[in-house]
Amino acid sequence: MTKPTLALVGATGAVGTVMREIISSRADIYGEIRLVASARSAGKLLRVRGEDVAVQALAPEVFDGVDIAIFDVPDEVSADWVPIAAARGAIAIDKSGTFRMNPEVPLVVPEVNPDDARTRPLGIVSTPNCTTLSMMAAMGALHAEYSLRELVVASYQAVSGAGVAGSARLYDEVEALAGDRTVGQTAGDVRKVLQNKLQGESPFPAPVAFNVVPWAGSLKEGGWASEELKLRNESRKILGIPDLKVSATCVRVPVITTHSLAVHATFASEITVADAHRVLTAAPTVVLMDDPANGVYPTPIDVVGTDPTYVGRVRQAIDFPNTLDLFVCGDNLRKGAALNAAEIAELIVATEF
Amino acid sequence: MTKPTLALVGATGAVGTVMREIISSRADIYGEIRLVASARSAGKLLRVRGEDVAVQALAPEVFDGVDIAIFDVPDEVSADWVPIAAARGAIAIDKSGTFRMNPEVPLVVPEVNPDDARTRPLGIVSTPNCTTLSMMAAMGALHAEYSLRELVVASYQAVSGAGVAGSARLYDEVEALAGDRTVGQTAGDVRKVLQNKLQGESPFPAPVAFNVVPWAGSLKEGGWASEELKLRNESRKILGIPDLKVSATCVRVPVITTHSLAVHATFASEITVADAHRVLTAAPTVVLMDDPANGVYPTPIDVVGTDPTYVGRVRQAIDFPNTLDLFVCGDNLRKGAALNAAEIAELIVATEF
Repeated sequence: MTKPTLALVGATGAVGTVMREIISSRADIYGEIRLVASARSAGKLLRVRGEDVAVQALAPEVFDGVDIAIFDVPDEVSADWVPIAAARGAIAIDKSGTFRMNPEVPLVVPEVNPDDARTRPLGIVSTPNCTTLSMMAAMGALHAEYSLRELVVASYQAVSGAGVAGSARLYDEVEALAGDRTVGQTAGDVRKVLQNKLQGESPFPAPVAFNVVPWAGSLKEGGWASEELKLRNESRKILGIPDLKVSATCVRVPVITTHSLAVHATFASEITVADAHRVLTAAPTVVLMDDPANGVYPTPIDVVGTDPTYVGRVRQAIDFPNTLDLFVCGDNLRKGAALNAAEIAELIVATEF
Repeated sequence: MTKPTLALVGATGAVGTVMREIISSRADIYGEIRLVASARSAGKLLRVRGEDVAVQALAPEVFDGVDIAIFDVPDEVSADWVPIAAARGAIAIDKSGTFRMNPEVPLVVPEVNPDDARTRPLGIVSTPNCTTLSMMAAMGALHAEYSLRELVVASYQAVSGAGVAGSARLYDEVEALAGDRTVGQTAGDVRKVLQNKLQGESPFPAPVAFNVVPWAGSLKEGGWASEELKLRNESRKILGIPDLKVSATCVRVPVITTHSLAVHATFASEITVADAHRVLTAAPTVVLMDDPANGVYPTPIDVVGTDPTYVGRVRQAIDFPNTLDLFVCGDNLRKGAALNAAEIAELIVATEF
């Protein structure tokens, strides 16, 4: 059997870099691997599977002979190029928001809804937003046994969710502010220091160092941020609960990588902390870190760079029946992005090639 | 009429320092002001109302002739000394957790339940936990018109909530990590750098720089942190809603001062965004910052050092009837602590002296 040819489109970005590491460290199931990016990166040598591979400029013919093409590019680039790859015969796995809510495109988290990946009328499979993904393995496992009904979520989102520029900005801001032991104590003082010391636009609407910023994405009807609506709509589609009640507030925090979520989850029937511990311990890609008496709960700096979804602080809500409060962490570049796409590709290769 | 004598107990701490600034900048309603602290600070000169005042060591006789004593000291110090001050005839306003849930002690936020301050069988008035206080002016105003029923809250708590040592620790950690543009990308790397570079214990159970830590307070039954239960129990008492449903997850973030809260609030009847805007605009100590199209929402660095409670991101929950999602910021040392105590004192002076 010939090994499938893989194309990684957007191979130079924050997620693309992690994607090459992940592809290089997991079972080697591919034949040729093509790295594709914008024309200005063409010819650049990038490492994957221990080899230097020359980046090819995005063009229709790079998809000829490709079995699986993983896209991590902006929405508008996906809108143009994912259908071209599909038309040339590739199964396109798309990380952008463009096709996620299209009823003819499955939205897949392999631990949760692997069977959805089989039906692809457009030749496209979407992978969810990183914030949704950060909790989905855990919530999917709990839903499978206890039937999820409602989610109230507050996020603590890392700056690398905005790409390489997001991480660079936080490092820049921290460098500019470090050593001043009065900063952050007077309204606007952080802004003033950064205006004086830093050139260039921030990818964020406000300083992120010594701050939290309650905004992620673009403005939608009713004052919602697009990221908050994605969390609602994508959770419904992945879990197969069209009437799941969801409210989310998305907040950027000064963390480089790993999104965290405070989740208030209501189920169809009673669920105890012991029940949740049993389910989460049994879930293969979830790690339970829940022993606060010994200081054990997940935090981003302990999670970053690893694959699982971490859950801690599981509590039975005192005043809300059938409800748990919990805290979830997941690396937004790995499970939140590159890893999930790689797992979808592996699932398709394992079942169809 | 003789002006009342005020004692500030705990005058040297993070809140005590802000308390002296606040007392100095507001209407000068006091006669003598005594500064009281532990014996090791006795004799130290501290500034209040433009004068240098010598700190007195905590002792029963410092309360002789005192009309109002504001305490900002640890719980166990309040437990011992607040009753002594009251027995010597002072009205004690206590910031600690010791007496807050005592049915014979009113728990007061002057904008919300001023009348409760009048009945003081023990001569003690308590002022709430800083996390509860950060949202109470806003939630009290909304409750007065729309009858609050449920609160689901996630906090973004500043390090100065743990006092001067909390702020010092974050500055230390940021200084130790600044300049390393790879840190925060590998599990545990932040811990390693800090272990090598910093001496001394942190007041936090994990690094706070480049991190968020889902823990505040001590462990209580059911896995709850004491701070989460305080938010529940104190909100019920202040708002006078004994059956208010509350779930909270408290998380420490790398912000120096100003707590933020993502609040999901359910009311007895329908409430629109326009309704909430009207109520919050009319509330004298609340500032509405809610125009996301123009990047207007509160963030800690813009709020710190000021008195109001700031509200933004007001949205009508899509799937939950009679429910708003919103984001609240308040300076945890001012309204969250010193300012509220000063306002209680002013209320008592205005109505009783």
